[in-house]
Amino acid sequence: MEGSEVHFIDQRYLPHEDKLYIARTTEEVAYAISDMVVRGAPAIGVAAAYGMAQAAMINDGGLPEAGEQLKATRPTAHDLFFAVDHMITAIKDGQGPDAASKDYADSITERCERIGIHGEQLVPYDGRILTHCNAGALATVLWGTALSPIYKAFEAGKDPFVYVDETRPRLQGARLTAYELHDAGVRCSIISDNAAGHYMLRGEVDLCIVGADRISRNGDVANKIGTYEKAVVARDNDIPFYVAAPTSTYDPSLADGLAIPIEERSQDEVLIVRGNPIGPKGVGALNPAFDVTPARLVTGYITEHGVLAADELESRLADF
Amino acid sequence: MEGSEVHFIDQRYLPHEDKLYIARTTEEVAYAISDMVVRGAPAIGVAAAYGMAQAAMINDGGLPEAGEQLKATRPTAHDLFFAVDHMITAIKDGQGPDAASKDYADSITERCERIGIHGEQLVPYDGRILTHCNAGALATVLWGTALSPIYKAFEAGKDPFVYVDETRPRLQGARLTAYELHDAGVRCSIISDNAAGHYMLRGEVDLCIVGADRISRNGDVANKIGTYEKAVVARDNDIPFYVAAPTSTYDPSLADGLAIPIEERSQDEVLIVRGNPIGPKGVGALNPAFDVTPARLVTGYITEHGVLAADELESRLADF
Repeated sequence: MEGSEVHFIDQRYLPHEDKLYIARTTEEVAYAISDMVVRGAPAIGVAAAYGMAQAAMINDGGLPEAGEQLKATRPTAHDLFFAVDHMITAIKDGQGPDAASKDYADSITERCERIGIHGEQLVPYDGRILTHCNAGALATVLWGTALSPIYKAFEAGKDPFVYVDETRPRLQGARLTAYELHDAGVRCSIISDNAAGHYMLRGEVDLCIVGADRISRNGDVANKIGTYEKAVVARDNDIPFYVAAPTSTYDPSLADGLAIPIEERSQDEVLIVRGNPIGPKGVGALNPAFDVTPARLVTGYITEHGVLAADELESRLADF
Repeated sequence: MEGSEVHFIDQRYLPHEDKLYIARTTEEVAYAISDMVVRGAPAIGVAAAYGMAQAAMINDGGLPEAGEQLKATRPTAHDLFFAVDHMITAIKDGQGPDAASKDYADSITERCERIGIHGEQLVPYDGRILTHCNAGALATVLWGTALSPIYKAFEAGKDPFVYVDETRPRLQGARLTAYELHDAGVRCSIISDNAAGHYMLRGEVDLCIVGADRISRNGDVANKIGTYEKAVVARDNDIPFYVAAPTSTYDPSLADGLAIPIEERSQDEVLIVRGNPIGPKGVGALNPAFDVTPARLVTGYITEHGVLAADELESRLADF
């Protein structure tokens, strides 16, 4: 944040172009979230916190309206709603908007680092890890969620290898995860989403770690479309499947994953790849952005409070 | 076949361009198979049969050499080896090369039609069917394998709907399956491969039908990468999962799927989509073209001799 401007690395153009997106109004922050200038549940939360701080600075009294506007951008990631509500409470309690948003961002960053510290212990010395979508530094600040244990393992001198699902339709794996892992020096290869099962069946994957957009009270997990398939295939091969997320992603108000709203995005995300159509004229696409992985398929939840079982979430993630 | 020329619809350019590829030599037929001008196991077999007929016409006595050259193009699809051996025997037994190749093509076409007749009974009136890759008219002549029951259902007045997995990396689903279903008037939507599980979990898929590149004696199935994942997810949701293939795809010489050679293709198929790179510089990709679905996940095998169980394959597919 610079004054009342919120600055974003524009993730839509990575890794091909480095662009900055500057939001001067609530509308522009909302656009950054809905058009995926910024994406990844914890990062969406931090963006919303800055958006709320901005609204408090430039628009006296409009905080509830700004909150509603930001909440309307994307329906699935819980961090968005959590951050908006957190900011409204903090400012009502007398904290300055700038300090409140900075505190929120710092808290998320620290929680993500703790996710890494706890999760690192699950990574074997030369562990082969499958991840889906991007839940790395670009999805939060500095550490990420799913990638945080991998970064911590690498920092501790381990030599992990990461299978990066390309993650159609928006290719966040190929574009963002591969980019940041390579940049950090972690060994990785991109695979088509279809190839994950092949390597799992052949015994060439030691564990899976993914992030989350929302976790319901019972431990069901909404995450990027395709996550459920990976979890089922991991179970078919007795491969541990972990979900990494901070408290801000946990939504105890929803009993189970069936109640999580699933965003349906434009069919053009499927039908057009980097400007080129892939299918024939006249055929449409369906494009659910997330799916729900039932808690029964999740080995453990890597949180800032340790690696938890589904029935520990409610008591251990009670307070932020 | 025109004289000694083998004519192919160049499937690499569909659905964006209609091009013809004309092979005048065994080298050119081999290239058409290895570079996927023609693809799909039964179609590869028919191409190889025409290639053998051509070799017999233009190259006296070089038939075994031509056979070896054609067999070396792609390692997984059994139809390739089957067709070459079939042609060598037919010509040795005195049949003219032209007639032998035409007989082979006609026989495959007729078998695929019978696959449709048997499989049609599995398709509910407005059945929602998931398919992966392309096993349609473009993969064989006229009917296809996995799509044959759908065409027959449509012809019988049913109104099926098909979820078309786009099938990364080469997008045969989005490019070819969507193209030919739409052309035939069958309702369909393209989905990213990641979305198949979402619809299965929600109870919105009635059955899955896929083709096969090779079926081992015990019923394990090598097919396009990603097939195994769909089969596991179908099982997790008690959705019937059928494999459609003629006898030419069945390889009783291999006890199980572990023995099926899996082709590893160029990483550029993953990293470059319609001419554009999708990932960062410096990161490679792994690109297995097929995976193996264990027989335990297959509900039934739709063959020209009926819908068979795994333990019926050996006795029922004994003769071509």
